[in-house]
Amino acid sequence: MDTPPIAAVDPVLVRDTYGKSRVRLIKLARHADRHDVKEITFQILFQGDFKSCYETGDNSKILPTDTIKNTVYVLARKHDIVSIEEFGKHLVDHFLANNPQVTNVRIEVTEHLWSRIAAAAFTRESQKRTAVVSGARNGLTIEAGIDDLTILKSSGSAFEGYIKDPYTTLKETKDRIFATAVRATWRYASTKLDFNAVWQGVRQVILDTFAAHDSLSVQHTLHALGRQVLAMFPDIAEILLTMPNKHALLVDLSPFGMDNPNEVFLPIDEPSGYIEATLARGTGR
Amino acid sequence: MDTPPIAAVDPVLVRDTYGKSRVRLIKLARHADRHDVKEITFQILFQGDFKSCYETGDNSKILPTDTIKNTVYVLARKHDIVSIEEFGKHLVDHFLANNPQVTNVRIEVTEHLWSRIAAAAFTRESQKRTAVVSGARNGLTIEAGIDDLTILKSSGSAFEGYIKDPYTTLKETKDRIFATAVRATWRYASTKLDFNAVWQGVRQVILDTFAAHDSLSVQHTLHALGRQVLAMFPDIAEILLTMPNKHALLVDLSPFGMDNPNEVFLPIDEPSGYIEATLARGTGR
Amino acid sequence: MDTPPIAAVDPVLVRDTYGKSRVRLIKLARHADRHDVKEITFQILFQGDFKSCYETGDNSKILPTDTIKNTVYVLARKHDIVSIEEFGKHLVDHFLANNPQVTNVRIEVTEHLWSRIAAAAFTRESQKRTAVVSGARNGLTIEAGIDDLTILKSSGSAFEGYIKDPYTTLKETKDRIFATAVRATWRYASTKLDFNAVWQGVRQVILDTFAAHDSLSVQHTLHALGRQVLAMFPDIAEILLTMPNKHALLVDLSPFGMDNPNEVFLPIDEPSGYIEATLARGTGR
Amino acid sequence: MDTPPIAAVDPVLVRDTYGKSRVRLIKLARHADRHDVKEITFQILFQGDFKSCYETGDNSKILPTDTIKNTVYVLARKHDIVSIEEFGKHLVDHFLANNPQVTNVRIEVTEHLWSRIAAAAFTRESQKRTAVVSGARNGLTIEAGIDDLTILKSSGSAFEGYIKDPYTTLKETKDRIFATAVRATWRYASTKLDFNAVWQGVRQVILDTFAAHDSLSVQHTLHALGRQVLAMFPDIAEILLTMPNKHALLVDLSPFGMDNPNEVFLPIDEPSGYIEATLARGTGR
Repeated sequence: MDTPPIAAVDPVLVRDTYGKSRVRLIKLARHADRHDVKEITFQILFQGDFKSCYETGDNSKILPTDTIKNTVYVLARKHDIVSIEEFGKHLVDHFLANNPQVTNVRIEVTEHLWSRIAAAAFTRESQKRTAVVSGARNGLTIEAGIDDLTILKSSGSAFEGYIKDPYTTLKETKDRIFATAVRATWRYASTKLDFNAVWQGVRQVILDTFAAHDSLSVQHTLHALGRQVLAMFPDIAEILLTMPNKHALLVDLSPFGMDNPNEVFLPIDEPSGYIEATLARGTGR
Repeated sequence: MDTPPIAAVDPVLVRDTYGKSRVRLIKLARHADRHDVKEITFQILFQGDFKSCYETGDNSKILPTDTIKNTVYVLARKHDIVSIEEFGKHLVDHFLANNPQVTNVRIEVTEHLWSRIAAAAFTRESQKRTAVVSGARNGLTIEAGIDDLTILKSSGSAFEGYIKDPYTTLKETKDRIFATAVRATWRYASTKLDFNAVWQGVRQVILDTFAAHDSLSVQHTLHALGRQVLAMFPDIAEILLTMPNKHALLVDLSPFGMDNPNEVFLPIDEPSGYIEATLARGTGR
Repeated sequence: MDTPPIAAVDPVLVRDTYGKSRVRLIKLARHADRHDVKEITFQILFQGDFKSCYETGDNSKILPTDTIKNTVYVLARKHDIVSIEEFGKHLVDHFLANNPQVTNVRIEVTEHLWSRIAAAAFTRESQKRTAVVSGARNGLTIEAGIDDLTILKSSGSAFEGYIKDPYTTLKETKDRIFATAVRATWRYASTKLDFNAVWQGVRQVILDTFAAHDSLSVQHTLHALGRQVLAMFPDIAEILLTMPNKHALLVDLSPFGMDNPNEVFLPIDEPSGYIEATLARGTGR
Repeated sequence: MDTPPIAAVDPVLVRDTYGKSRVRLIKLARHADRHDVKEITFQILFQGDFKSCYETGDNSKILPTDTIKNTVYVLARKHDIVSIEEFGKHLVDHFLANNPQVTNVRIEVTEHLWSRIAAAAFTRESQKRTAVVSGARNGLTIEAGIDDLTILKSSGSAFEGYIKDPYTTLKETKDRIFATAVRATWRYASTKLDFNAVWQGVRQVILDTFAAHDSLSVQHTLHALGRQVLAMFPDIAEILLTMPNKHALLVDLSPFGMDNPNEVFLPIDEPSGYIEATLARGTGR
């Protein structure tokens, strides 16, 4: 093969991380009267002193990603999984305590939620609960979130008063379908909380505020959601909301001699609007 | 380009179909006190006298798939969508009445279900409701179904007493996790029914029977589900159930000096068991 | 739980099958001067005398799907994998020889193709090679196929002369983009062939005929492809071609005072046309 | 509905962006002897002075995402698309010139590559070409990349000498399958380059270096790839490489009395290793 030899350039390793993705787990809690089930997927990422592995292939500071995976199962046996946030803390603590070469551990967690049918039977929900626990030797950050919360409202949504330029064809509307798949992640000001209760509360506030808000744009509603979450949950320092505008286009039936009084729509996956913002607690509080 | 001319072989057109896939629709029903929302995806397929189009490019008998799509929107404006089964019948009737060259129309429908949050706000569910309405000039067949009903039970599931051969490594178990994503489709004996009520009923019977059944295998539980549906709903002539065995493997913690009393599992997407059967009402009824 | 007891209906098991899906394998052939790599995914399905398992949970005739999976790896060690068709035959032979309760074995195979970069390095292709080997004690059927062969032509494609009805809005065109993802499966008249050579040949005929054909519709081109394959490969008895019409819509730039001489298109995934036909060798041969 | 009123908290808008995702385009260049086809998907994101839209629903500074989409098609008609990088520059220039409220424009581009079959016929490749062009009024940054470049080598890959701890079960190996799906993005030091030639060159260097490298770990090979790209292409300032370790596990055939001399493997999608690093040109240049 006609390959050039590895060149004599001397590159700088600006940033690097490694770890294990898509580590999956089901943990059963076997109570006398019922089972609880948690299904969780982890991504675990390390940062630290790994330069020699990249530059010379010296693996002496590398904890294999296979061992990282094994550790998840061992700790899942040792600890009750009360919440993904708490369990993330156990993982961070373990990896930092046992790996001096690691400076930062990042645990990204997705919980696939199951609803109870019976004492030991469940159906899987479509929304997901997420968390990111990141730790260094001087501290810990805990974020929580919701993913794939697909919601739609068919009244109380307008879009008017925007810029018109030579390439504008969109019609202003006082009444449209507003559909989105919310991804929310929020950072806690504290690391000791009833994470389950707050998560349920944030989800409910998002649903209720979305339903009630008199929306003038996706941005407008996103802000209302974020503001309400910050108002109701003092332990949340900031929240990032991503709300794609999943368009439902009014179908033009005029070629067939028919009107369409906002009844028949074509939902499309592409293109979609993309709206994202981070809201933080103001200094006034 | 060095392409051979179309050869002089004289092939027979054994079977052919054409139509439109992934026709998407949202229909709002605007009631005084609330909205109802239906989100539906259609595949519409024709069979008939289309030989000349294939053989000579004569399109004179072809209703374009673009027109098929337009017709869905027109009929959605004309009719309330009480159920996907009823609306499928309207589509079949329309296409057969207006297209003498078409002998069979098949309407495959997937309804993406939305749960109510408020009078005009909704969240999308993970399970889907399906229907197939197929019609010819001498009659109509209506099938209904559920797709992506992901369920799990963590007690009452065993697997023992199977064949052991030289390539067997699986251990017998009296207690395993049983997870599956049910796809069920059933054929109605009648074309006039309260399709919505029956669908809700079948779904509930599947959930309840799954939860309650003392399972000796996936096959055993599949049969119980089908039998119970046939027993409870006399208008269902037969039911096809597909139940992949979505394995959750017990994690071996013995290398780490730990036991694992059926608490920590590794769920896997591949490989999976595949179990499928059709049950029909016996002649005894 | 308030579940009804399993009812006294006596259902008939009309049809049933079980087996293992998504069994994945990489087999390396280590030659002196190079490696060959095959990456294959299997679905293996049994039919036979399994009524007692469904009806009473008696597993005594069930070969576990886990054992089915193990057998794939054992046979992959024992045999060179010359072609997926030949290897499918080994699997059918093994399962029929060792399982008297099994009447039919169906091996569905997808090969993920890798192109060579170097003696032992490869890149993965997007198209897939498929095969279905189905066997009973009285004989064997071998089908082969291509999947995800995404192709596009930007000249030599028209669509005119079709039915116009009150819901027609499509414009006739002499010049459109024709894009499709071909799925082809063909049945061999023989079970002893150079399967690799024929497969490469069919793929080339499909590409060349698609490029050269003066297309009057998708149906017209589909027929030309099938006819040419049957003409060139006498060992192929019939071929099923599925060719979705993946539309590329001409973008209307007239609102901006611009023409669009078939240059700027919007490709869409949904809706899409669906065209499918099976061509068989005529009786004249 | 029992919803709390929007609360009196005064949140700070820390960061916000909006725009359009999944804007798709096919552009044909119709030459006398052949067509060239480009299929591109865009995400276009704005940052700027949009606070009033979020806080009060005042849309007077909002260019609708629908107009952003229209603009892509207009500019695609006006300009030849020589490269996605050049076309990205046209988009940035347009949006900044016409929208004083916008401070930053980010154009994320994915090109779905088509290989030529004939003068006007093509097959779609599996790898993708990417670019990000981000501009503000004081300057422009151009990044390019490759995505979904799935590669595998079956010799010249070892993994030894790593940390062993109580949770280690992985065996050291001098000979394993190394499979990955490379995602590479690199930042150019210049905004005027033959982007097409450099892209083809980088792709070839990645393939050749991957094939030739005597790999002691994924990190080791990632570093070799990045170093070689920086050595060969002086216009590249830094490169980010993401290389998941897509494991192929050696199948244990010992329960069946068979050895497995690195021939039969089980490829798995989950879990996978995750290795990512950014290399920059050292100060020595």
